[in-house]
Amino acid sequence: VTVAEQRTIGAGVAERLSVYLQVLTQSQKMGRERISSQELSAYASINATQIRRDLSGLGKLGKRGVGYNVDHLVSVIGELLLSQPKHKIALVGAGRLGQAIANSPIFTEQPITITAIFDHNPAKIGRQLGGVTISDPAQMRTVMGRHKIIVGVLVVPAASAQQAANDFAAAGVRIILNYSEALLDLPPDVQVLTANPAARMVAALYRLG
Amino acid sequence: VTVAEQRTIGAGVAERLSVYLQVLTQSQKMGRERISSQELSAYASINATQIRRDLSGLGKLGKRGVGYNVDHLVSVIGELLLSQPKHKIALVGAGRLGQAIANSPIFTEQPITITAIFDHNPAKIGRQLGGVTISDPAQMRTVMGRHKIIVGVLVVPAASAQQAANDFAAAGVRIILNYSEALLDLPPDVQVLTANPAARMVAALYRLG
Repeated sequence: VTVAEQRTIGAGVAERLSVYLQVLTQSQKMGRERISSQELSAYASINATQIRRDLSGLGKLGKRGVGYNVDHLVSVIGELLLSQPKHKIALVGAGRLGQAIANSPIFTEQPITITAIFDHNPAKIGRQLGGVTISDPAQMRTVMGRHKIIVGVLVVPAASAQQAANDFAAAGVRIILNYSEALLDLPPDVQVLTANPAARMVAALYRLG
Repeated sequence: VTVAEQRTIGAGVAERLSVYLQVLTQSQKMGRERISSQELSAYASINATQIRRDLSGLGKLGKRGVGYNVDHLVSVIGELLLSQPKHKIALVGAGRLGQAIANSPIFTEQPITITAIFDHNPAKIGRQLGGVTISDPAQMRTVMGRHKIIVGVLVVPAASAQQAANDFAAAGVRIILNYSEALLDLPPDVQVLTANPAARMVAALYRLG
């Protein structure tokens, strides 16, 4: 019986575990073998007591004064959070920002891989971007169905965003990461995540006074 | 006596107000005159009861069955959150992603303006990017001091991120928006915001099951 089968966890815990996983994966790449809850706290900007509580809920993982084994924690959290080792996602909009995202390590260093890219521009269709061939959005349902993709990244101008979001929803997308400024009207079973960090920046500025 | 002088608000409220401001600003651009708490809720992904509570704390702003006046709400929240109409920020790293960010409406549609851009590459120094001249990071202290910039956007590869973050901190930056994958070690008075949405995406995937 795996950890994932034993228990279900709440949305807040899942979100924090995802942040820990991101920090731990990066620590792993930097050759770190152990990490303390204080260090995790500093990198994740989450209270160390909260971190110890979250992780103690996953079993006996850390040792007082020694910290957590990075590799082990990555595998335990990864197994809990991810039903597949690499989630396939799609991107619509191969403009400047879309190209930068497809070529950046934003997703490639995470358990996420961009498997499909769409753009309406005929000059771009058929060309390669980050190792993926750009497709016509008319092919969206077929391509998304074939790869069972349920996450769509929206990198189109605000004026085209609602149409692209509708296309994603019709093709079975359940989570849209919205890089555009547009407000999206979508069925309640489609969740929209705002990629724009401006609101958090404004809040942080306010806190500084 | 302005609203901002009358009261202080908590960090959680400030963060939610920033999200409302982002939604309201976009609604304004789309020509909307009124918005209901339910509509705000759908766009902001925040409970409508919470929204009504947050906004009622700012005075009598909404009318039952009529909703909120968008322009008025933008000015009230803007006055409360922002000590200046446009916050000046700096960006380091004029590579592909940095160029895309500088040219995208990510910040320009917000009360945020990129005032300084730095890159170590001599071929880029002196060139224009999004209307801003790229400077040598050796000039960082002078440029940042002149414009009183306390927010830095980090768009460099992970291997250069710590050095660029140190440069920012030495130049007086208090908030770093980190687009790199690197974990940053900084003094406690420098706040790091992670721009990478991958952790939230993984958490959203988990919640879908």
